Amino acid sequence: MSLTPWKVLSSRHIRPRFRIDKVQLSNGKTFEPMVFEFRNWANVLALTKENEVVLVKQYRHGVQESLLELPGGIIEDDEDPLDGARRELMEETGYLAKDIVEVGRIYPNPAIQHNTLFCYVATDVEPLGQQHFDETEEIEVHLVPLEELIEMTRRGEFQHALHVAVLFQALAHLGRVK
Amino acid sequence: MSLTPWKVLSSRHIRPRFRIDKVQLSNGKTFEPMVFEFRNWANVLALTKENEVVLVKQYRHGVQESLLELPGGIIEDDEDPLDGARRELMEETGYLAKDIVEVGRIYPNPAIQHNTLFCYVATDVEPLGQQHFDETEEIEVHLVPLEELIEMTRRGEFQHALHVAVLFQALAHLGRVK
Repeated sequence: MSLTPWKVLSSRHIRPRFRIDKVQLSNGKTFEPMVFEFRNWANVLALTKENEVVLVKQYRHGVQESLLELPGGIIEDDEDPLDGARRELMEETGYLAKDIVEVGRIYPNPAIQHNTLFCYVATDVEPLGQQHFDETEEIEVHLVPLEELIEMTRRGEFQHALHVAVLFQALAHLGRVK
Repeated sequence: MSLTPWKVLSSRHIRPRFRIDKVQLSNGKTFEPMVFEFRNWANVLALTKENEVVLVKQYRHGVQESLLELPGGIIEDDEDPLDGARRELMEETGYLAKDIVEVGRIYPNPAIQHNTLFCYVATDVEPLGQQHFDETEEIEVHLVPLEELIEMTRRGEFQHALHVAVLFQALAHLGRVK
């Protein structure tokens, strides 16, 4: 058996960045999947010298709860993803990442989105700046020891799936997954 | 600083399961976030007696690539999530999960979706059935040793972020994350 890409017969946008394709499968059937053309995202596991993780807490309207998350956000169109991760860390937390390394590129939802989530680990981050929020952002900074974050994730207290994935990429990079 | 939930002033659906809310923030500003009312999802790390992971490979139209993933899918409205995980594993791979345990509940994208991803580990799964696909599904089954899957993830060859997150929840449950 071979996996055949779907043939795109036509495309239309019903909102900016929200496309409906008409596709034909190898069995001849047609249907109309949706695709969200989101920009790429970046998140960073930022560690202080004391091995504490710099986390952000913010209200998330999809689930209508405030959640602990990794810093990060949308990479601008003309921006290097690593620079975007560093910028988001500074804007959301005021922490500066001098030493930062890419630890993975994953797809947030490859069935219906075409964007990539770039994953980073920053070490020895320091609080050297001020938070700068977008108009709809309100963010608390929390420091949590890395071991405690792993335990919180196991217990279901770190609930953003995409950030659990970034944590995995970071820990695998650091040789902490067996 | 306290994180204030946004006040929903009005809601409208522009497609089924796709809602636009008008909300007011604590600073008085209003804006219109979108919310996708997807049903809940379930994915399972299914291990054979030989500690091989049962993976599926399928074409994903968002990124227009065929990807290795964990078995799983949408939980029906009246279905127990664990039963849904077991059903999806059987439909997609033909493997039966007798011993299956929940290892996490995470939010696939809490900013714009309200659904939960239920995470499971199944052990000693056996090939006892036949694959049954939806009309738009075409799925290859691949067996990969667990250690190799961890290494593939580190190398960027297991790219579905939500399934990396499920893998993390499973390995944390199994005591393999330090």
